[in-house]
Amino acid sequence: MIKVVIIGAGNVAWHLFQAIQNSNEAEVIYVHNRSLSTLSDFEKTVPTGTDLAEIPTADLYLVCVKDDVVSGIIENLHSVNGIVAHTSGSVSLQKSAQKNAVFYPLQTFSKTTKLNYNNIPFCLEADSSETFGLIEKLAKSISENVYHIDSEQRKSLHLSAVFVCNFTNFMYDIGHQICKENQIPFEILQPLIAETAQKITINLPEKVQTGPAKRGDVQTVKSHLEQLTNSTHKEIYSTISNAISEKYGKKL
Amino acid sequence: MIKVVIIGAGNVAWHLFQAIQNSNEAEVIYVHNRSLSTLSDFEKTVPTGTDLAEIPTADLYLVCVKDDVVSGIIENLHSVNGIVAHTSGSVSLQKSAQKNAVFYPLQTFSKTTKLNYNNIPFCLEADSSETFGLIEKLAKSISENVYHIDSEQRKSLHLSAVFVCNFTNFMYDIGHQICKENQIPFEILQPLIAETAQKITINLPEKVQTGPAKRGDVQTVKSHLEQLTNSTHKEIYSTISNAISEKYGKKL
Repeated sequence: MIKVVIIGAGNVAWHLFQAIQNSNEAEVIYVHNRSLSTLSDFEKTVPTGTDLAEIPTADLYLVCVKDDVVSGIIENLHSVNGIVAHTSGSVSLQKSAQKNAVFYPLQTFSKTTKLNYNNIPFCLEADSSETFGLIEKLAKSISENVYHIDSEQRKSLHLSAVFVCNFTNFMYDIGHQICKENQIPFEILQPLIAETAQKITINLPEKVQTGPAKRGDVQTVKSHLEQLTNSTHKEIYSTISNAISEKYGKKL
Repeated sequence: MIKVVIIGAGNVAWHLFQAIQNSNEAEVIYVHNRSLSTLSDFEKTVPTGTDLAEIPTADLYLVCVKDDVVSGIIENLHSVNGIVAHTSGSVSLQKSAQKNAVFYPLQTFSKTTKLNYNNIPFCLEADSSETFGLIEKLAKSISENVYHIDSEQRKSLHLSAVFVCNFTNFMYDIGHQICKENQIPFEILQPLIAETAQKITINLPEKVQTGPAKRGDVQTVKSHLEQLTNSTHKEIYSTISNAISEKYGKKL
């Protein structure tokens, strides 16, 4: 069994904890966090603590903390023998531990949402093939989607994720606001949202683009811009519509 | 049985044809289209034709044509006794037929994609309660999600749909392009896309917004803008990030 210490107690820590406890290849033996409060989710099932000096010996230290404190934490772990892997999409492979790796689960995590870990893509990188082998074994015991992604690629993947997840959610938010202002239940849009996400699992997004900007339907675009009362929404509508019409050789 | 004539032979016509043929309350007795070519999908199972004068008598004429020709077609149907309903999100309830209605299925349709008609929202409007009753009976025989939506609300719904469907798909497209430029398989992003769409079925979008702009993470936003080589993508990134950070009281 791969013995794992988790550093951090946020959403990613919580879900990786669940996933590893369900794996046949690994077990979490300890969870560390600098503050006590969020450890309460873990302390029923595993030893926990707030003092980095008290962390037990393990095969793998999974650093699940905010991007800007990752490198500081890993520097403090320079003397451990086990692998030190962080889980951040936007942080490069570090060098300060003896064995360095990245164990990046590409998913949006909330503590309250149950996830099927089996299809979460794990994007892995390590500073030696032996280290890579161990984290790959762990990742494969959790998920069917395991990828070797280097630091440069991971930066691009993180940027793509901002578009397809963060910005997409903001499109949903604007849709929700327009519905609310017009006494329309937002749930009417949900089958459309689901189908839009589903479509691109079998088609390239550029092959299934639809809408007034794609068609170069100047009248509808003009009427939508007149309808929008929020100047920020108007600006977003214009910027994206111009980009779409340009891509498909139309003029608005 | 409600006897239906379909006018038009595009994606919406094709899917409504399938849905009605599977319904216990209605049957398509004829499909009309101005050009012969696209009628081939229908002519194996139902009479078809290109001459508006040859359309048989029916209870309901479903006008599934492009937005800009809807009103012209309906004017040509001014003398029929049955209900004339169009299926367009952005066209108002017409007045030129004897019985006017709107039968708007809020979904993105491609001929090649199979759909579960049972959860497609049907947004209905009519110029009399008797007419409304008949189209409601048909809609309920196809789907569990049937709504009374007036012309003003439908305009807003259509605008919302542009954000949550057309603009979202363009976010997927940008994500795909960034992946392609960096030799990353786009399928890595698909579980994230699915989960982002799934999350808002149980949470309001504004409650589950995540990402660097939401956190006011100036460093990551700056580094993403430097990474982006396409000036249109840069502009979209800035515009949406500024809108998100403003909404959550952060400064970029």
